[in-house]
Amino acid sequence: MSDEKSNLSRRGFLGAGGAIMGGLALTQLPLDGAAPKGGTVVDSTMPRKWDETFDVVIVGSGFAGLAAAYEAKKAGASVVVLEKMPTAGGNSIINGGIVSAAGSPLQARMGIKDSPELMAKDMMVAGLGLNHPDLVKLISEKSTETVLWTISELGVKYLDNELVQEGGHTVKRSYKTYNSSGSAIVLPQLAKLKALGVEPRLETFVTRIYRDKDGRVKGLQIREGYEFPKADSGKLKTIRARKGVVLAHGGFGQDVAYRMIQDPKLTAKVESTNQPGATAEMWREASRIGCNIIQGDWIQVGPWASPDEKGFGLAPHFAQEAASMYGIWLDATTGKRFIDELANRKIRADAIMMLMNQGHKCIAFADAKAVSRLTPGVLDKLQKSGVVKAYNTLEAVADAYGMPRAAFLETVAKYNTNIRNSDPKNPKDDIKVSTRLPEGTVPLETAPFYVSRLLPKVHHCMGGIYTNTAAQAMDVSTDKPIEGLYAAGEATGGVHGAVRLGSCAVIDCLVMGRAAGSNAAKAKAWG
Amino acid sequence: MSDEKSNLSRRGFLGAGGAIMGGLALTQLPLDGAAPKGGTVVDSTMPRKWDETFDVVIVGSGFAGLAAAYEAKKAGASVVVLEKMPTAGGNSIINGGIVSAAGSPLQARMGIKDSPELMAKDMMVAGLGLNHPDLVKLISEKSTETVLWTISELGVKYLDNELVQEGGHTVKRSYKTYNSSGSAIVLPQLAKLKALGVEPRLETFVTRIYRDKDGRVKGLQIREGYEFPKADSGKLKTIRARKGVVLAHGGFGQDVAYRMIQDPKLTAKVESTNQPGATAEMWREASRIGCNIIQGDWIQVGPWASPDEKGFGLAPHFAQEAASMYGIWLDATTGKRFIDELANRKIRADAIMMLMNQGHKCIAFADAKAVSRLTPGVLDKLQKSGVVKAYNTLEAVADAYGMPRAAFLETVAKYNTNIRNSDPKNPKDDIKVSTRLPEGTVPLETAPFYVSRLLPKVHHCMGGIYTNTAAQAMDVSTDKPIEGLYAAGEATGGVHGAVRLGSCAVIDCLVMGRAAGSNAAKAKAWG
Repeated sequence: MSDEKSNLSRRGFLGAGGAIMGGLALTQLPLDGAAPKGGTVVDSTMPRKWDETFDVVIVGSGFAGLAAAYEAKKAGASVVVLEKMPTAGGNSIINGGIVSAAGSPLQARMGIKDSPELMAKDMMVAGLGLNHPDLVKLISEKSTETVLWTISELGVKYLDNELVQEGGHTVKRSYKTYNSSGSAIVLPQLAKLKALGVEPRLETFVTRIYRDKDGRVKGLQIREGYEFPKADSGKLKTIRARKGVVLAHGGFGQDVAYRMIQDPKLTAKVESTNQPGATAEMWREASRIGCNIIQGDWIQVGPWASPDEKGFGLAPHFAQEAASMYGIWLDATTGKRFIDELANRKIRADAIMMLMNQGHKCIAFADAKAVSRLTPGVLDKLQKSGVVKAYNTLEAVADAYGMPRAAFLETVAKYNTNIRNSDPKNPKDDIKVSTRLPEGTVPLETAPFYVSRLLPKVHHCMGGIYTNTAAQAMDVSTDKPIEGLYAAGEATGGVHGAVRLGSCAVIDCLVMGRAAGSNAAKAKAWG
Repeated sequence: MSDEKSNLSRRGFLGAGGAIMGGLALTQLPLDGAAPKGGTVVDSTMPRKWDETFDVVIVGSGFAGLAAAYEAKKAGASVVVLEKMPTAGGNSIINGGIVSAAGSPLQARMGIKDSPELMAKDMMVAGLGLNHPDLVKLISEKSTETVLWTISELGVKYLDNELVQEGGHTVKRSYKTYNSSGSAIVLPQLAKLKALGVEPRLETFVTRIYRDKDGRVKGLQIREGYEFPKADSGKLKTIRARKGVVLAHGGFGQDVAYRMIQDPKLTAKVESTNQPGATAEMWREASRIGCNIIQGDWIQVGPWASPDEKGFGLAPHFAQEAASMYGIWLDATTGKRFIDELANRKIRADAIMMLMNQGHKCIAFADAKAVSRLTPGVLDKLQKSGVVKAYNTLEAVADAYGMPRAAFLETVAKYNTNIRNSDPKNPKDDIKVSTRLPEGTVPLETAPFYVSRLLPKVHHCMGGIYTNTAAQAMDVSTDKPIEGLYAAGEATGGVHGAVRLGSCAVIDCLVMGRAAGSNAAKAKAWG
C-alpha cells in the first residue's frame, strides 16, 4: 500500500473538519454574553506553562492508540503514548486476534465471494441499525487494505489457509493470527514504534483534558508514576498537544459504578472479561469537556460464561453448544427454566442478571447425548478445570446446586414430554419457541448429566465518543469537530450499534486509529 | 437583587481565576493544577449582574414543569416558568390523559389487586432492566397518592368507574381523564398556578445554563420574545436562580439532527407525534454543563402509524388489530413481507425505517374477514379519512401501491398455503414464528382487501438527564448532585429503561416534577 495514496484519501476525509484555528490569543468574549466560539465549555485551569510538548498525544496503548501513534510518527509528528497501567496493550493484547477483511486476497484464494457492502450490511443488521452508516462504510471499505498493511508494514502473521466465520457474518472473512491472540498484532506494533523511538509511557494517568476558550483541546494534565487505581498517586504534570490529542482509552467493562449508571443490572456480581484498567475515568472527562457520548447503554455481555474460570474461557462451548442447543438452562433457586435458551445473547444475559440481582443462581444443564455434540477434547478440559461437573442422577444435580428436587424433576420431565411428543425432524418445546430446535434434539434422560454455573461477563462497550469519519470527536453543543481532539476504538460509539460482531472490533481500532493519528499529525499546530 | 452581592461572589470566582467575561487576563492556575471543586466545567461567561432573580427557575411548562412550579410556590419560593413556544403545555397538553396508580381506591372498589411492587415489576420487565430501580420504586410508591393529589388539590376529573389496562401492565391500574387528554391535567395546573400569581412566560428560550466555578448552577441566559425556531430572535437577558433551576424541557422527538446522532435510522422521513417544539437545545446544553445524559438511544417509535393522518391517529387499530394479527405487512417496493408482523414495536419500527432509508415503502394489508375483528365504527372512520383504502382485487392493491403484481400475488398465496395447511386451532406461518398466531387466523382471500400505508412515528424519549430520587441532576465527573440543578419528566433518563409503558409517563412527570419543585424550594440560596 502506498502511503502517498492513503495520505491523499485522508485529505479527502479531513474535509470540512480541517478548519483548524491556531493561535494562543484568548478569545474576546462577545459582549452579549453569548456562548464562546464552538459553543463549548471553557477551562479555567489552563496551565500558564507546560511541562512538556508533543505534536500528538495519545491516550491508551491498545490497537487503536498504537495505530494512531504509528501513523502520526510516520507523518513526521513528535508523539507520546500514555498508558495508565504498568503494562502496554490494554484489552487488545488479551483479545482473540481475529480480524475481519471484506474482499481479501485470502477470500479470493479460497473462492469466497465478499464485498465491503456485505460486511457493512452484516454489521448494520447485528447493530439493529444504530450504527452510523458512514463509519461502517469507511471501516468495511478499508478493512482489506488495513489487514494487508498489518502484514506488509508491521509483519503480523496470520494463519495462511484459514478464515474464520464469526457469528453474524454472512461469509468466512476474518483473518486469524497465528497464536489466536491480539498480542500477535500489539507486539509488532510496539516493536515498530520502539524502532521509531516511541515507547508507551506506562503508569501515566490522564487527570484532565484542557479545552480552551476558543474550543480547542490544547493538552492534558497527567499523573506520572500513577499506581492504578490510586487516584492521587504519582506526580502531576502537564503535556501540551500542539496538533492533537487522540483518545484511545478503550471501554469501561470493569467500572461497576459507571456501568451501573448506563445499565443498572451490571452490578458488582457481574464479572468482566476485560483487563482491570478498563475503567471510565476518561469517559467522564470526555463528557465533561463537551464530547457527545452516545449509545453508552449498549454493553456486550456474554450470558454463557462461568464464575469458575477467567475471561470467557471454555464454558461457552458447553453452555451454548450442548446446554442451549440440546439441553436447558435453569434458575437453580427455583428449579425452573427462565428463558428461551436460544434467544439472543442480550436477552439471556439480561434475564440471568435480573435473577442474580434477586439473589438467584443460574446453571446450564445437559445430558450425555447433548455433550456428545461438543468438539472432542473440550468436555475433558472443562471437567479437569472444574468448570463443568458430572452427576449420575438428576437428584444428585438438584442437591449439588441447592435446587428443589421436585421442581427440577418436573422441569426436566416437562421438557422431555415436549420433545417426545413432537416430530423428531421438527422438535418442539414451549419455551424455545422463537427458534427452530436443532434436528437431533432428544429428551434429557441419558446419564451422566453435566452442569456449568452461569455468570454473565461484560465484554465490550459498543457506545462511546461520537466521531466523524476523520476520527474527530464531535462537540455536543455544535455537532462540529472539537479542534485538537480525535478518538478511536472502543472509546468511540456508533460503529457497532447495538451489537458488535466478533472480529469487527480489531478492524475498527486499526482503521480509525490510523485515521486519528494521521489526521492529528496533519492538523495545524497551535502555540 | 443585590448587584453588590453578585459582584462579591464573582470576585471569589476571579480569584482562583478563569479567563473571565470580556476579560483577556490569563488565568491564575492553582499550583497543583487540580480540577475545580466538584470536578465540573467552569463557565467563563457568568454575568456580572442579573436582569432578574427568582428562587426557583423552571424550564418547560408540561406536567413536570408545572408540578414543580406548584410545589415550589406552595413552599414559599418565588417562581418563574419559562416556555419557548407561544403556548403552554408542551407535549403534555396533547397527551392521552391516562395515569397509572398502583393500589388505588378505584382499584379497590373494582376488586383489582395491585401494589407498587407489581407496577415496578411491570415497568422493569418492559424496560429490559435498564430502569434505575430506585426511581421506579419511588414513582410506583407515590403513584396513588399523586393521582389523588391531582383530584384533591388540582381538581382533575377522571372517569368514575373505569380503569385502563395499557399494554405491559399486569392489571387495570390507570385512571383516565374525563376527556381522554392530558389537557384535563395541564389546564387545572395552569389555573391553580395563575391563582398563585405564576403564569408561564411564553416565547422565552433558554440559551445558556450558568454553572459556576464552585460547581453550582446559578442561573440562565434567555431570549425573551423568541420566535421558535429562530435561534437569534428575541432579546438576551439573564435570570438568577437563587435556589435552583428545574429542567423539565421534555424530549427531542422533533429534532432530526439530534435524534439521528442517537439513532441514525430516525431520518427526516420518520415523523413524530410530538409538538414541534420537542427539540434538543436543552439536551445539548445540559450535557455541556456536565449533566450525565443516559440511554438517549432508546426512542419509542410506533411502527403502525400512517403518513395520512397526524399523531398516532386511528391507523394503529387497523395496522395492528387487523393487519398484524390476521393479515400481513409488505414492502410495497418488492411485494414481499419483511418482518414478523407480531414482533415487538421496536423490531418492526426498525425494519420499516431501514427499508424507508433505502427508498422503499411499506403497507399493512388485510382482507374482509380480518377487518371484521375491528371495533365497530373504526373502519368507517379510517376509510372516510382516507387512511385505509379498500380494493376489490389483489391486482388492484398491487397497482395502487406500485407493487410488482407477480411478487405480491406469490406472497399472499404462500401465506395462504401456510395457514391452509396448518391446524386451525394452531395456525402456523413461516414468518410469524416468534408468536402463536391468534386462533381464527384464515387465508387472506375474502374481498374487499384493505390497506394502510405504514410510517413509523417518534413518540417518546426514554433517555435523558441522570437524576437521583431527589430529582437532582447528577454530575458526569463526580456522580454527585449538581448543586442548584434539578430535572424531571421526559428530559430525564433511567425511569423507563428500554420501553416506557403507556400511562407511566404522566405519573413520572408528576411525581418527579413535584419532588424537583419541592426540593429546589428547600435548597439553600446563594448570593
